[in-house]
Amino acid sequence: VHVSDVSLASLELGPFSHFMQKEIHEQPKALADTIEPILTHRFKAELFGANAEEVFSNIDSVQIIACGTSFYAGSVARYWIESIAGIPCNVDIASEYRYRDVAANPRQLIVTISQSGETLDTMEALKYAKSYGCEQTLSICNVRESAIPRASKLVFYTRAGAEIGVASTKAFTTQLIALFALTGVLAKLRGRLNDEKEAEYLDSLRHLPGSVQHALNLEPQIQRWANKFAGKEHALFLGRGVHYPIALEGALKLKEISYIHAEAYPAGELKHGPLALVDSNMPVVVISPNDNLLEKVKSNIQEVRARGGEIFAFADLDSHFGESDIVHVIRTPRHVGVLSPVVHTIPVQLLAYHAALARGTDVDKPRNLAKSVTVE
Amino acid sequence: VHVSDVSLASLELGPFSHFMQKEIHEQPKALADTIEPILTHRFKAELFGANAEEVFSNIDSVQIIACGTSFYAGSVARYWIESIAGIPCNVDIASEYRYRDVAANPRQLIVTISQSGETLDTMEALKYAKSYGCEQTLSICNVRESAIPRASKLVFYTRAGAEIGVASTKAFTTQLIALFALTGVLAKLRGRLNDEKEAEYLDSLRHLPGSVQHALNLEPQIQRWANKFAGKEHALFLGRGVHYPIALEGALKLKEISYIHAEAYPAGELKHGPLALVDSNMPVVVISPNDNLLEKVKSNIQEVRARGGEIFAFADLDSHFGESDIVHVIRTPRHVGVLSPVVHTIPVQLLAYHAALARGTDVDKPRNLAKSVTVE
Repeated sequence: VHVSDVSLASLELGPFSHFMQKEIHEQPKALADTIEPILTHRFKAELFGANAEEVFSNIDSVQIIACGTSFYAGSVARYWIESIAGIPCNVDIASEYRYRDVAANPRQLIVTISQSGETLDTMEALKYAKSYGCEQTLSICNVRESAIPRASKLVFYTRAGAEIGVASTKAFTTQLIALFALTGVLAKLRGRLNDEKEAEYLDSLRHLPGSVQHALNLEPQIQRWANKFAGKEHALFLGRGVHYPIALEGALKLKEISYIHAEAYPAGELKHGPLALVDSNMPVVVISPNDNLLEKVKSNIQEVRARGGEIFAFADLDSHFGESDIVHVIRTPRHVGVLSPVVHTIPVQLLAYHAALARGTDVDKPRNLAKSVTVE
Repeated sequence: VHVSDVSLASLELGPFSHFMQKEIHEQPKALADTIEPILTHRFKAELFGANAEEVFSNIDSVQIIACGTSFYAGSVARYWIESIAGIPCNVDIASEYRYRDVAANPRQLIVTISQSGETLDTMEALKYAKSYGCEQTLSICNVRESAIPRASKLVFYTRAGAEIGVASTKAFTTQLIALFALTGVLAKLRGRLNDEKEAEYLDSLRHLPGSVQHALNLEPQIQRWANKFAGKEHALFLGRGVHYPIALEGALKLKEISYIHAEAYPAGELKHGPLALVDSNMPVVVISPNDNLLEKVKSNIQEVRARGGEIFAFADLDSHFGESDIVHVIRTPRHVGVLSPVVHTIPVQLLAYHAALARGTDVDKPRNLAKSVTVE
């Protein structure tokens, strides 16, 4: 008999207005639950299954395959895996991967990411990779015993609990934890993670739920911004490096639930096209913790100041930016270590949620969308 | 003394209203000029320089680096290189590549693409790759003796002639020829191109300027569509596989010169978010030659029919779609072989041009944008 993890209690809204808001606020716990086995076992391969060390020793690269929000989690992981583990990593959209002639490499680790474990395109892409002789497969999934983990050699279950809102929130941030654990394990197996560095990463994980809670405490400020967004039909999200996928995720959330046409760009591409769009109808959201991105974007944006282009930046303490008439800044928690993308996901989730609320859309069931996409 | 290739005559508009329109219509000649040496030498490595065969024999993968429109050309090439030459291929945005810790591989061929050969981020990314020990470098460029080809071991000059319009058109399609030539050469060196297949590819190249001319002849039909777009502030472009980057390029063109907020998605991602945006204010452009994409998109779009979502499809003769109240189709030329992305670039260029014209924007000098981006 298959006993579901979904308790009736977890289906209740409690003090929250929507499942999405509840699930955003559950993230400190969902993250702590997902982090717990990593703190116990450190970056041991066994986190991914009994034979994980053997699998991980036989690979020379990583191919991540996913759809939608899960694809953005994979895109963050690409930066981590190449930088920390020193292993070449590709990320493909499942519906693209399964229909193209790939240059197959049986020594690639195929990593699929799906909250439900039932996403059709991701499942088909996994089968397709196997048909090319790729036998080393890992599933990152939130629902036990679902189809994709059953079809994979290794599995890491995120412990987000049941996610009811169509727009994924806690599934995404816990997927990032799974992918960070993968990065640490691969780095350790390759001798690229000394004890000091491992301790630092574990410390970063240990402090993460607290930093996420601090980010949640920004909700009143973000709600004031969201009310400004509610009257707009467009938004541009910018990020760089490991925060570019967070810009993509922020834009997707806003799109999905508020129906504002939000689009993300890597900040360096601004002058290669999207800058032409920026005017007073197109607020620009910048995810710019602790880097010189905001300074560079500001110099670009001066050109559109005359047309009222406004910047809304999420920047941590080190960014040292004051507010001005065209640059609004919310100070985000400065998180130790490399997990800043997780912390900076929270404000863009809250921005989307409150913008949708202000616009009166059906937050938990956005038009035209399904929770898990089991058709093409 | 450096003598410019730009003759005064080529700077004259002739019968055209804008340089962009002129340059769109120059594509049959620009393509024929760029194709000519390939028809002469077939897929010989020497097309890329005297020592190209040695360089190409020492690589195990391809890393393409570019910005903006050139990045989309590289994204088409990824499909070709993996499918035809069987070599793993990555494509990175230059401003992202230069700031991330890459898993370096000295056996990677670094391919940079830049119309001007002076794009700052692309130049810096090339230096960065070299600093990692990547010595096998190829530049695809339209301006002789510019900085990036000078810094590269190999070079292929496109013969597009001077491009004046800020929105790149003939530079893009000729870059695709250069990248197709690279694909053919790499495939041949690896024994993956027999005489019959080589002859077929050369035939496809030989017929390309004619097919592009047929696509240009669609201008009056596309102009009628463009007049419908002129009143919109949003558009969604969909494509799949090798035509997904053409959807990206179509959206970028519309953005750049008409200031309509156009965004592209791989068609399979529609249900993972952007479908929520689709209503009567968001026309959906589908690039769907000879594949079953349109049928799949149509089944998705039925859901939004009630809200007046309209599809505008570019489909070649094999697609067999009739028009309906929500699906409009322009039949594009059915091109022999794998060069269909080049042919299908023409209608999206014309759509952007005529939409901008109808909106009265400054087509050749869109606001906020520069022709070549030599700053960050």
